[in-house]
Amino acid sequence: MSQKSQITPLSGFPEWLPEQRIVEQDLLDRIRALAELYGFVPLETRAVEPLEYLVHQGETSKEIYTVGRLQDSGQASELGLHFDLTVPLARYVQEFRGKLRFPFKRYQIQKVWRGERPQEGRYREFYQADLDVVGDGELSLHFDAEMPAIIHALLTALPVPPATVLVSNRKILDGFGRGLGRADTTEIVRALDKLDKVGPQAVRQMLLEHAGASGSEADRWLSLAAIRSTDTGFVDDATALGVTDDLFAEGVDELATVMAACSTLPHGAVVADLHIARGLDYYTGTVYESMIAGHDDLGSICSGGRYDDLASGGGHALPGVGISVGVSRLLGRFLGSGRLRASRTTPTCVLVALTNDDTRAQSAAIAQQLRARGIAAEVFHEPLRFGKQIRHADRRGIPFVWFPPLAGDDKDSVRDLRSGAQVPADAATWTPPGNDLRPTIEVAADPLRATRPHGV
Amino acid sequence: MSQKSQITPLSGFPEWLPEQRIVEQDLLDRIRALAELYGFVPLETRAVEPLEYLVHQGETSKEIYTVGRLQDSGQASELGLHFDLTVPLARYVQEFRGKLRFPFKRYQIQKVWRGERPQEGRYREFYQADLDVVGDGELSLHFDAEMPAIIHALLTALPVPPATVLVSNRKILDGFGRGLGRADTTEIVRALDKLDKVGPQAVRQMLLEHAGASGSEADRWLSLAAIRSTDTGFVDDATALGVTDDLFAEGVDELATVMAACSTLPHGAVVADLHIARGLDYYTGTVYESMIAGHDDLGSICSGGRYDDLASGGGHALPGVGISVGVSRLLGRFLGSGRLRASRTTPTCVLVALTNDDTRAQSAAIAQQLRARGIAAEVFHEPLRFGKQIRHADRRGIPFVWFPPLAGDDKDSVRDLRSGAQVPADAATWTPPGNDLRPTIEVAADPLRATRPHGV
Repeated sequence: MSQKSQITPLSGFPEWLPEQRIVEQDLLDRIRALAELYGFVPLETRAVEPLEYLVHQGETSKEIYTVGRLQDSGQASELGLHFDLTVPLARYVQEFRGKLRFPFKRYQIQKVWRGERPQEGRYREFYQADLDVVGDGELSLHFDAEMPAIIHALLTALPVPPATVLVSNRKILDGFGRGLGRADTTEIVRALDKLDKVGPQAVRQMLLEHAGASGSEADRWLSLAAIRSTDTGFVDDATALGVTDDLFAEGVDELATVMAACSTLPHGAVVADLHIARGLDYYTGTVYESMIAGHDDLGSICSGGRYDDLASGGGHALPGVGISVGVSRLLGRFLGSGRLRASRTTPTCVLVALTNDDTRAQSAAIAQQLRARGIAAEVFHEPLRFGKQIRHADRRGIPFVWFPPLAGDDKDSVRDLRSGAQVPADAATWTPPGNDLRPTIEVAADPLRATRPHGV
Repeated sequence: MSQKSQITPLSGFPEWLPEQRIVEQDLLDRIRALAELYGFVPLETRAVEPLEYLVHQGETSKEIYTVGRLQDSGQASELGLHFDLTVPLARYVQEFRGKLRFPFKRYQIQKVWRGERPQEGRYREFYQADLDVVGDGELSLHFDAEMPAIIHALLTALPVPPATVLVSNRKILDGFGRGLGRADTTEIVRALDKLDKVGPQAVRQMLLEHAGASGSEADRWLSLAAIRSTDTGFVDDATALGVTDDLFAEGVDELATVMAACSTLPHGAVVADLHIARGLDYYTGTVYESMIAGHDDLGSICSGGRYDDLASGGGHALPGVGISVGVSRLLGRFLGSGRLRASRTTPTCVLVALTNDDTRAQSAAIAQQLRARGIAAEVFHEPLRFGKQIRHADRRGIPFVWFPPLAGDDKDSVRDLRSGAQVPADAATWTPPGNDLRPTIEVAADPLRATRPHGV
């Protein structure tokens, strides 16, 4: 059906092997389970949005993929692929507003598309997993305060090294600027955002050159940005900087409420870090980032914040607070490097051996009895020598091979391929150890074999 | 963020409410669980393929959606959205051939896109769920024979009326034609394919007019197409038609093998039906359709067959046999009509009441204890009167409201909102009835409220 030349990876469109997809599915399942434990409802939106709407929302319209019809080629596209899950959420909530229950807590796990230049951790097609709470008119700060615990629980549920949740509040930066007589903090935010990458000296230079700050103002910004605490201790440090402004005070208060709500989490799991700004995003209050221990170069793996209005232009505001997990980026690092792998390459737990073609129905019945009790089973397709059938199972990591009785008074038996132990068994009652029922995800201490997905 | 005019459904791009998405997810979960029970490995391919490749594969290139970059507008697209999951499978198997294990049994559940004219059951963006077995060089007929049992199990696992699996073999039609001195059966297949819709008289007319058949030839085709049996009984009827041809005999033999393997399934679950041809698809052997009782107008809801070569042009053939479930079409009928619904609109099992702002940490700790044991819980966000908090839960169908102790020596209690019964409870041990843990899918005897998805 195809020309060989067309069989080629597409740069930026990663694809996994099935055994890697098992790991990806496991991660997505864990995120979904966690979101549902916290009462978020599932949502899936269409992949396309009106192009005009996407362009209007996006800061980076050159990265948008347009969608057209082959038969209409030459005509301008009217549709585009969504580049995140927030813009579709805004449209969805407006469209279905009358049928949704507020506060609307939804999670959404879907592919998104961006025409970026592909590089490590940057794909053109990738998974995002978003959790948002949207209010109709107003939204309690309680939801901001709950979010660090959710991020912590979520990242703890994933088989990756421990993560630290960093929290701040945009009102602190904006209010600090106002207190210093600054109406616009865009260039300040842009500079502080680079702190992790280039360090305070280079940021100071940027504050002087691009933001027009004096040396003493630049130092005050750097002092603010250096404040960190694992509890509400940041309040005293921030206040000590001597800037008086209502918005600043409000931001400090809000962040204190958020940090106080995190006091039951393990010490250090959540850190107030006043340099967190979420760049040029549309956040207006609390902001979140989270860093995985030993993987600072990966950047924030779960980020988000509070926005005043998800969708202006309607009658009343739709304030929200939410987070987004970069699933594909996580997987690119931990799955692609071989640090994560599935315990076997197939869901199959038991391969039922086929003695000869005449007893195929017998083998099929055994497999069916196992499946009826939730045990994944398949019948080997050819009556080859048992040694070959065992090798087939072994190569796939299938833990058990089942042997039907060979003679009338013989018994069924099942062999554990790892120990080699073979014992009599009854397909109506035999149960594998819980850990063998499904493939499990193993964290390799020493990643042996780096397997990046094709297309990267 | 938006202009009101852009907030509009897109024809053919259905979107569900969260409580409907719960049902959709449940269906997808059941299909996935079933596929894994039979040992199919998970696969997900990128949404885009080279446009040239799609056009080369598709019979209906005018339905292909092209994908381009906004910044490159004016340039011809080089990518398109996949319109099924078979074409991506063919490309994937060729690309990753050296890393896959054959026979390669994979399932794949993804959205596909087709620029069709939207109508009931026809969408532009929709879910397909495919199961295929692909061999490297050869593939045992055993896999054809196992497929009806898988289709039966799959459709039995879904909350829809009972389905009948119809099976035939393309070699029977092609061989019958050869026996009658016909090299090309394209027009015959096209006519017989319409049998269900227009009846034998009209098909006879088509055979005469479009296929150039004589009256007696047309009658023999209609006799062949009328043959049905719930076992291997079709063999005698087919042989009795007196056509001698090797390919015909081979098709009859293969179908007999498939039907014999189905003898352990409930009587009538699988029917040999010699008029099944799967139209102009690329099948070369066994073909499958399945009809849901009382919903013949829906057409086949799970179809497929055997193909000689998934991807010619490589060194050796990649024969396969597979099926595809029209998930969105099923949902359009059974969810859209209100016949299927979730028992509640949220995953939340327990709403923990908030007594006042000072005891928020107490309520949060209760919710956390429940979640730690897999019970989805959320804390009400405001210390409103308990009556209001109960109404909030009731409107969402949340079955339980938890009340923290009001005074020091008071006990926790939990109320079942359906019975009104309120009992003392301990968050460390209390467990809801199994049916209440997650939303369940209910089949309404009498669909009250038809809710078609937006965008249809």
